[in-house]
Amino acid sequence: MSLTVFILSDGTGITAETFAHSILSQFNLKFRLLRLPFIDSRIKAALAADRINQTALESERRPIVFTTLVDPVLNEMVKGARALVMDIFQTFVEPLEQELGIEASHAIGRGHWTADSEAYCQRIEAINFSLAHDDGQSDHNLEQAEVILIGVSRSGKTPTSLYLAMQYGVRTANYPLIPEDFERGALPGPLAAYKSKLFGLSIDAYRLSQIRAARRPGSRYAALENCRAEISAAQTLMERENIPYLCSTHKSIEEIATTVLQECKLEKVIY
Amino acid sequence: MSLTVFILSDGTGITAETFAHSILSQFNLKFRLLRLPFIDSRIKAALAADRINQTALESERRPIVFTTLVDPVLNEMVKGARALVMDIFQTFVEPLEQELGIEASHAIGRGHWTADSEAYCQRIEAINFSLAHDDGQSDHNLEQAEVILIGVSRSGKTPTSLYLAMQYGVRTANYPLIPEDFERGALPGPLAAYKSKLFGLSIDAYRLSQIRAARRPGSRYAALENCRAEISAAQTLMERENIPYLCSTHKSIEEIATTVLQECKLEKVIY
Repeated sequence: MSLTVFILSDGTGITAETFAHSILSQFNLKFRLLRLPFIDSRIKAALAADRINQTALESERRPIVFTTLVDPVLNEMVKGARALVMDIFQTFVEPLEQELGIEASHAIGRGHWTADSEAYCQRIEAINFSLAHDDGQSDHNLEQAEVILIGVSRSGKTPTSLYLAMQYGVRTANYPLIPEDFERGALPGPLAAYKSKLFGLSIDAYRLSQIRAARRPGSRYAALENCRAEISAAQTLMERENIPYLCSTHKSIEEIATTVLQECKLEKVIY
Repeated sequence: MSLTVFILSDGTGITAETFAHSILSQFNLKFRLLRLPFIDSRIKAALAADRINQTALESERRPIVFTTLVDPVLNEMVKGARALVMDIFQTFVEPLEQELGIEASHAIGRGHWTADSEAYCQRIEAINFSLAHDDGQSDHNLEQAEVILIGVSRSGKTPTSLYLAMQYGVRTANYPLIPEDFERGALPGPLAAYKSKLFGLSIDAYRLSQIRAARRPGSRYAALENCRAEISAAQTLMERENIPYLCSTHKSIEEIATTVLQECKLEKVIY
């Protein structure tokens, strides 16, 4: 392991870490990613610089450092380290100051989700809502759902619901489509009143069979023929009821959630 | 609303959106954030450029555009729009190419969590694990937990557990500390074998009382005196058992999760 990448932040550094990971994924190399969070004092900045220098001594390559420190004194301490130091916030803050004609606050920790803010409370409420309305376990307050995901068991509803709540503060319920629904040829009863909020997840039968078999090997539930029949019946039902749906097979939670937000026109845009 | 900020990506654009939001939070102004995901063809890039130009015509300020498009042809189409266009990936890719002596792949969609990858499957497994082990509902497979959060009801265990699973693929269980545990003066039985995996959440009594009152107004459960007694008993128990804990009151999920990862030495660092 020759390349170490440091993420330095006065907050959690999670945004910078995800960003750095995306950029480094464009290179075909292995690297070690070390996030050094909460760097909010001279002593912590000095310790971080020491750690970077120590790593430089021990490695073939000098380390790469992504910093988002807003305190210029601390940032300068870090920039003196033996590394390629890239200041990922300041690089964009300066052109924005020019464009907007106002100065950046250089305040620490004004990230996406500051605790105690109204947006943060809404987000926690959304997580609680989505948990309480996972897998059709409760119809209580269902009118407060912003979107209701439907689909056969193990089509990806639960992780997508939790992600929409966690990342976007969107109150997301989800209901399974089960054989009784197909026999009746109708949506689960409580959903009839909320048709405009429904979005479906489908999945490839072979993949579904694999996922189910990992939970209940050898079961009828996991059998390929049964998966195929359930998926076909679910698609027939969604098409007849004009419910938009996507196939989740090769999509990440982020990709599914992005499509749901677009299709359901749920993007929250004003900050 | 005079400022519109566009995020253009050939993937979901969620990383770029979070990043742009963090930067813009440093400015004291309101803005509208529009994410245009899945821009992976000339026609989509042309439509995006049209939309930016139309917004420029209708606004007092020209829009700001953050792009992460890796296809240079599509990127040039967007850079011709009437906006301040900032190429947030390329800005760092070029110095990295120089530093590392290798060329970036310019491949689309090699983000943090590509579906079908092993890391992605581990992440989905972690989400399922954390849900199944929420609020002490199951001791099954508890030995597979990487961390077990404990604390009184509504101290922040559930959102933190789900976040650790969702963002970091860390299998996180959580157990409530309840009056029976305090009377017995011992941790919940199943936890005795996993003391090294335990991390505690505490909370300010006044805040806890508010949170509980929103769920069960006027209850003994929510009464300030009762909250104070539970928190005190929980802290006594955690201190006697040498379990590290933090106070979650003014911390976001991200901040709590970051501290848990640090204290439990759970950072996954190799990519």
